[in-house]
Amino acid sequence: MAPSAQSLPTSVSDEKYANVKWEELGFGFCRTDNMYVAKCKHGESFQEGKIVPYADIQISPCSAVLNYGQGLYEGLKAYRTEDGRIVLFRPDQNALRLQSGANRLCMPYPTVDQFVSAVKQVVLANKKWIPPPGRGTLYIRPILFGSGPILGSLPVPEYTFTVFACPVGRYHKDNAGLNLKIEDKFRRAFPSGTGGVKSITNYSPVWITLAEAKAKGFSDVLFLDAATGKNVEELFASNVFIVKVEERVVPVEDLLDAEEVFCSGTAAIVTTIASVTFKEKKTEFKTGDKTLAAKLFATLTDIQMGRVEDKKGWIVELTDATKPGLKL
Amino acid sequence: MAPSAQSLPTSVSDEKYANVKWEELGFGFCRTDNMYVAKCKHGESFQEGKIVPYADIQISPCSAVLNYGQGLYEGLKAYRTEDGRIVLFRPDQNALRLQSGANRLCMPYPTVDQFVSAVKQVVLANKKWIPPPGRGTLYIRPILFGSGPILGSLPVPEYTFTVFACPVGRYHKDNAGLNLKIEDKFRRAFPSGTGGVKSITNYSPVWITLAEAKAKGFSDVLFLDAATGKNVEELFASNVFIVKVEERVVPVEDLLDAEEVFCSGTAAIVTTIASVTFKEKKTEFKTGDKTLAAKLFATLTDIQMGRVEDKKGWIVELTDATKPGLKL
Repeated sequence: MAPSAQSLPTSVSDEKYANVKWEELGFGFCRTDNMYVAKCKHGESFQEGKIVPYADIQISPCSAVLNYGQGLYEGLKAYRTEDGRIVLFRPDQNALRLQSGANRLCMPYPTVDQFVSAVKQVVLANKKWIPPPGRGTLYIRPILFGSGPILGSLPVPEYTFTVFACPVGRYHKDNAGLNLKIEDKFRRAFPSGTGGVKSITNYSPVWITLAEAKAKGFSDVLFLDAATGKNVEELFASNVFIVKVEERVVPVEDLLDAEEVFCSGTAAIVTTIASVTFKEKKTEFKTGDKTLAAKLFATLTDIQMGRVEDKKGWIVELTDATKPGLKL
Repeated sequence: MAPSAQSLPTSVSDEKYANVKWEELGFGFCRTDNMYVAKCKHGESFQEGKIVPYADIQISPCSAVLNYGQGLYEGLKAYRTEDGRIVLFRPDQNALRLQSGANRLCMPYPTVDQFVSAVKQVVLANKKWIPPPGRGTLYIRPILFGSGPILGSLPVPEYTFTVFACPVGRYHKDNAGLNLKIEDKFRRAFPSGTGGVKSITNYSPVWITLAEAKAKGFSDVLFLDAATGKNVEELFASNVFIVKVEERVVPVEDLLDAEEVFCSGTAAIVTTIASVTFKEKKTEFKTGDKTLAAKLFATLTDIQMGRVEDKKGWIVELTDATKPGLKL
């Protein structure tokens, strides 16, 4: 349920907020004012790109991404704190993950500084689209893809790095906890595949099962590993945690025995899982204010919204001196 | 090595041939005059599209294909026969494969008639790019992808079906037979994945090993199955055949014991494999004029080039009455 907001003029406006019904904000596409674009030829490095009005991308019909799926995405958020600051949460970690994925998919990539600078510029150029505190966040979507034409053999002659942003509310609508389907047919990632990076090739192949699960009323799908079909991996777009279990391989049986289960992700934040259904059998878990998930959600969003001091150096603040177009 | 030909005016010219050095034709991208585009909204069916001048596609930065890899491709060829006809080879089979993949990736698709009509229109609108008999073929690339913006949840609001074409020579340059690396780390397809359809997500994830093998002088990579790592699957863009082995699961040992091995595909046609290298050990096979591969290559191309009668109904001829823009 994207908001009904239409696009506004592309200059950075003095109005504080865009014309969005913030109370109806879901997690969906919403056209904003500006985006960042940088291009890079094969054998060269990414140079500083520029902020341009949000518009369709022009791309070769024979481009690597359209024909062979050479693309990565990232997702992070800008937060408007209660005392009026605009902050990011650990954007350098997104830059590093993009770099790792680019190596896996044979692409050049922006430096960490270029990446963080691009994200900052996009946030400032779409400042009025950042929801008021407590009403949502500005979701930032960097994408890196093979834009040059290729038929048959490598190399790809051109790559594009683009960053755009949309205001979003909660990703999962089930505030009382998610009801998951444990997928027992489709697998998502396999050893030596691309499960370790944020490749676009990891998503559309499992839409078929997500769509089917949602049609049956489930909140999301929990995937098992491809090698054995017995161990817990992740939800469609978030990690999964089981309370009192360390970071290790988790057989489905351990999940079904758990007291509390939750998921986390940039979009999902921290969300309680109320139940999982495996081969038609439903198992329920602890929900409500007394869960660890509720405490973690409060702590994390308190840090992100500036209500609690950040002692880890996770918050990156955008100041008035951070102007679009300048090297940050 | 794409030919150096530049794009020419977009009207269908009376000149018989484009300005291409046919004798230097490799298998690579070459810009031609016209392409076909059809779009379809979610919940609707594809209607007849149209031929437009070849140009970049305009696509949402938040499109399903750029962000989540929702795309398929097909590949087929138009042949100029020695008696001056222009023919296709079993294009309905490509249409059916596209439909199967579209179901897998949750996309609507053109009918078989729409698909074949689009291919015919693209060939006729780029007629002068079809190489002279014996000098190559016109490679036709239909692509189907999620072009509408999506963030978070389905459905994708718009899909695009595009067909373009490039004149090509042989895909593999090693006429004496291919020297393959048997990949012993990276896998390509896994049970319940997308290996059974021509999804764009099957390609870029294995470029890393193809690039490494080519850098070491190998012609191509032979993949083993993800489930066991012991059985033969396919090359990067073609099937593999072992002479005197029926269609069944083929352990690597059976491959190493074979007398003759070859691969096939729209791009590869039928190509002899001279050797495979598995964990640093090279095994050689029969090559030359006396191979079954040489006979099959001759028979297949004789049918495609009109030198031998087609008794199977595989050839689809394009006549002068087949005008672009008309329903065929």
